[in-house]
Amino acid sequence: MLVIMDGLGDRPIAELNGKTPLEAAATPNMDRLAETGASGMMHTLGRGRVPGSDVAHLAIFGYDPDTYYSGRGPIEVRGLGIPLEGGDVAFRGNLGTVDDDDVIVDRRASRIPDVTDFVKDLDGTTIDDVTFIVRPGTGHRAGVIMRGKGLSANISDADPHAVKLKVRDPQPLDDSDEAKRTASVLAKFLAQAHEQLDANPLNAERRASGQMPANYLLVRGAGYYHGIPSFADRYHGLKAACIAGGGLYKGIGAFLEMDLLSVAGATGQANTDVSAKLTHARSSLDTYDFLFVHIKAFDAFAHDGNALGKKDFIEKVDAAMAAVLDMTDTLLVLTADHTTPCALGDHSGDPVPVLINGPGVRVDKVKAFGERACTCGGLGQLIGLELMPELMNLCGLAKLEGA
Amino acid sequence: MLVIMDGLGDRPIAELNGKTPLEAAATPNMDRLAETGASGMMHTLGRGRVPGSDVAHLAIFGYDPDTYYSGRGPIEVRGLGIPLEGGDVAFRGNLGTVDDDDVIVDRRASRIPDVTDFVKDLDGTTIDDVTFIVRPGTGHRAGVIMRGKGLSANISDADPHAVKLKVRDPQPLDDSDEAKRTASVLAKFLAQAHEQLDANPLNAERRASGQMPANYLLVRGAGYYHGIPSFADRYHGLKAACIAGGGLYKGIGAFLEMDLLSVAGATGQANTDVSAKLTHARSSLDTYDFLFVHIKAFDAFAHDGNALGKKDFIEKVDAAMAAVLDMTDTLLVLTADHTTPCALGDHSGDPVPVLINGPGVRVDKVKAFGERACTCGGLGQLIGLELMPELMNLCGLAKLEGA
Repeated sequence: MLVIMDGLGDRPIAELNGKTPLEAAATPNMDRLAETGASGMMHTLGRGRVPGSDVAHLAIFGYDPDTYYSGRGPIEVRGLGIPLEGGDVAFRGNLGTVDDDDVIVDRRASRIPDVTDFVKDLDGTTIDDVTFIVRPGTGHRAGVIMRGKGLSANISDADPHAVKLKVRDPQPLDDSDEAKRTASVLAKFLAQAHEQLDANPLNAERRASGQMPANYLLVRGAGYYHGIPSFADRYHGLKAACIAGGGLYKGIGAFLEMDLLSVAGATGQANTDVSAKLTHARSSLDTYDFLFVHIKAFDAFAHDGNALGKKDFIEKVDAAMAAVLDMTDTLLVLTADHTTPCALGDHSGDPVPVLINGPGVRVDKVKAFGERACTCGGLGQLIGLELMPELMNLCGLAKLEGA
Repeated sequence: MLVIMDGLGDRPIAELNGKTPLEAAATPNMDRLAETGASGMMHTLGRGRVPGSDVAHLAIFGYDPDTYYSGRGPIEVRGLGIPLEGGDVAFRGNLGTVDDDDVIVDRRASRIPDVTDFVKDLDGTTIDDVTFIVRPGTGHRAGVIMRGKGLSANISDADPHAVKLKVRDPQPLDDSDEAKRTASVLAKFLAQAHEQLDANPLNAERRASGQMPANYLLVRGAGYYHGIPSFADRYHGLKAACIAGGGLYKGIGAFLEMDLLSVAGATGQANTDVSAKLTHARSSLDTYDFLFVHIKAFDAFAHDGNALGKKDFIEKVDAAMAAVLDMTDTLLVLTADHTTPCALGDHSGDPVPVLINGPGVRVDKVKAFGERACTCGGLGQLIGLELMPELMNLCGLAKLEGA
């Protein structure tokens, strides 16, 4: 069971007497896990490199982002349950409202709750041998895939990311024929989609009731999907599941073909029911070999510069850890994807603490789970790509090399 | 502010009761910086690799020597303020004295104080489409560049590095046409230069006054200059300056296009005014974003096997560190380029201590700056190429990867 606490790492904070939120928080359960386990510090991407959450998770799961990451689109689209094929270009999308001059009036079309009946007419459109797959996401969101030969993801966003701006034709970002063609075909599709959406009788109803029409498909985050081995393929057929509230993290799980488990109360926010997530994760070990549990709100507090909020949330999570103490025959791993110092309000490249508790672990002298306590732990300083090999070794699944 | 203390690292020494010179020295200022900072051990090139000062500095500044180093010539020549172009082959040179049989009588021509009026006649010579750029250095020294198409630096030294030996024609060190041609053109040039120098009326004056004639241009350390991104280009436009006494270290600064700052009393030797260097460095932070300060004499004492001298010099430098205590909003880094054990009298591959003090640093439990005290520091064990990423992260200049 791998518990990733998003943005948990921090730097010393004066209002916490020079401690980090994790050091300042009362965390008896995590400290006990540290005391009976082995700890270390993890540089997710490498020394000083600042990871986004998406590449950080890929690295922790043992997928080198330099090989497997090409933008957020494919991850988010997989998170919507839409299968991808190698060579696809995938986008995050949403339905918004533009006026007669194609200027954005509302990026979310009055927060339209469901776009299923709007995007179904666009799904399957083929232009110049490129098929567009458009599927509904949650709320105003949609996943968009371009499928065909010779596509490139190196094109600009059509979405200007703000209201009162005109939507843009996507532009090639290099001189390749692939980028030029992809941008050109996408522009044709977006114009055609705009006409279809604007003429959709459902938008007449929306206008009549004073709501913004959902008449423009905004796309962003183009990413080329090269194909990626599933978690099971990479790790000896291990049956893996993901418990996460946030869409990106479900996307990561789906991207690696983990099963996504729904847990009531898992919101991806500070009000999330951590106890329910961890309890569900523990009981799912009957069915699954590997559980990925993601907890998000640390990062949100840190982005807001709220050190006390981050500390309190850490204490809430620590209390919930009671659900996973004293597991037998299970490796429990606690770590973070990156550091988000409250003082910065943004990600940084400082390493994060990591602990492994369970059978076979060389229990070290570390007695607390924290950025500095873990520095002298038995795991030393490792990079993200080294974590899964450590776990496979401890599980007895690492292959003998040589004889 | 990055202070590199040349050859500071050492091994336990019996006459110092099993301590290293750094451990045996009284260093209250450096210890205070360690106590309020984060420490670690740095393997400049990698575990067990023995660095020369030139490659060590390149690695510390984040330039992989395997990519950017090709001999000392280009570095020394840049240190003389001579611009290089990609494809140049550069040499260290000096004027010496040979007899009528081309046997070296004096490698420094009676320590001639200035070669300007001798080399100006050689500068700009073109032979077989190769132009020779020859500029004066300090004392008997000169910088020599071969500029033209299809040159190679893989040729032997013409300088036999000792008196009573005949100067040699440079030889190609591989079978390539480039190496053969470069050696052949250089041989022609050196013969022609010898004739010109020998006939120089200034040498008649020298002979008349009983001084050795400066009649032979000795060249060594051929290096091919591939071009190298400047420090500013590599690090977000940071305006960098170098304060160093020794020529090689000025060369490193110039090679990376740092400004070279002159400080009265900076000699690159044990009598250097460390306090003046550090005070000048601190005040230069008004103008510069990054200060590289080099202090040399540790290494010279160690090469001489003088452990007590090394220890005393460490204490002198520690006292001078008073000038850089209590800086605000500045990251101060203390480290060495390599270990020079007094017992060996030569460089070794043992790691060197490193400490970072300043805003955002996770202060660790290390309370002294020394080879063994820093082993359990928060920075762990890093390689030279990882130091600049750590610093860019702490400065908030590291770029987010992914999203």
